[in-house]
Amino acid sequence: MDNNIAPVAPEKAWRLINHGPTALVSARYDGVDNVMAASWVCGLDFKPAKLTVVLDKIARTRQLIEQSGSFVIQIPTVAQVRLTHQLGNTSLFSAPDKLARAGVELFSIDGYDLPFVAGCSAWLACRLIPEPHNQQTHDLFIGEITAAWADTRVFRDGHWHFETADPALRSLHYIAGGQFYATGDSIFLDDVAAD
Amino acid sequence: MDNNIAPVAPEKAWRLINHGPTALVSARYDGVDNVMAASWVCGLDFKPAKLTVVLDKIARTRQLIEQSGSFVIQIPTVAQVRLTHQLGNTSLFSAPDKLARAGVELFSIDGYDLPFVAGCSAWLACRLIPEPHNQQTHDLFIGEITAAWADTRVFRDGHWHFETADPALRSLHYIAGGQFYATGDSIFLDDVAAD
Repeated sequence: MDNNIAPVAPEKAWRLINHGPTALVSARYDGVDNVMAASWVCGLDFKPAKLTVVLDKIARTRQLIEQSGSFVIQIPTVAQVRLTHQLGNTSLFSAPDKLARAGVELFSIDGYDLPFVAGCSAWLACRLIPEPHNQQTHDLFIGEITAAWADTRVFRDGHWHFETADPALRSLHYIAGGQFYATGDSIFLDDVAAD
Repeated sequence: MDNNIAPVAPEKAWRLINHGPTALVSARYDGVDNVMAASWVCGLDFKPAKLTVVLDKIARTRQLIEQSGSFVIQIPTVAQVRLTHQLGNTSLFSAPDKLARAGVELFSIDGYDLPFVAGCSAWLACRLIPEPHNQQTHDLFIGEITAAWADTRVFRDGHWHFETADPALRSLHYIAGGQFYATGDSIFLDDVAAD
């Protein structure tokens, strides 16, 4: 595991996705690893920490999550914009070499039988909370965040520090048609008590 | 209605929230209007266009939505950062003058009995799709986007144009403790076919 990666307390993990970044969703089942891009990832609860993710029925990663009951939400960086876009536009069903083609490197974290994507800025290990109606009717999946990690160059002490880090580590915010925005300037209301 | 405001086709309305901005949620019932800030707003489906929003049980706006069955999701701008933070940290229950105190100006759109917040960059009128289990267990509400509008200075032709507009019109992305990020630089993968 990269020396810059440090654990984030699950009760602070919602801060890793609260700015609405584009995410990568990864999962593993029966020897198969896959990674997809997802814009529709969102906080749901603080304690226990939970999130939602929308997973289309055509996604192989969705099948792996249904089978394994677990997944990783990770936050790709500006340096990974092409990788992210490619992962959102190819399927493991039709492209068995999808991950290699997109240049994805996976790494392991002790105690978690999950595929983590190298080079991201944050990783949230999630346990699927089965909600069959939501999954079938709305393609909506709920995960409990059981553990989280971040790259300390850009997230530490419970806060993002994009403004003092390499701009290549900023998050991505996808629109459509190959257009993304990077996370921008920090605005800090200094008359507000920090927590 | 402001001259800069133009309708957005519902099937393109998901692009108004796809970059994960902080939102304002407004609702009206029986002569009461309210507005709250929400980070946890997310796309759910394209056609019919749907979104999710997490509404805590302590929120007066949630009650108005449960009673009226409709609400507005709007995207505040950098110029509205204090208004947005204040709306997220006061309740109509304890502060009857909440909207006036935050400097909220409401406007109307013909045919919609809903309170729209002036000065935002986009507005999505939603019809609540009742899901009692999600609402009670997860504080999770699903809305169908029945109509949408945007400020053409910053969203037109189905795309955001932050990079050529006044920076004060950029979206906000909330973290915690009074810290926001503005939407940043555009990244366009020009070898990807535009849609």
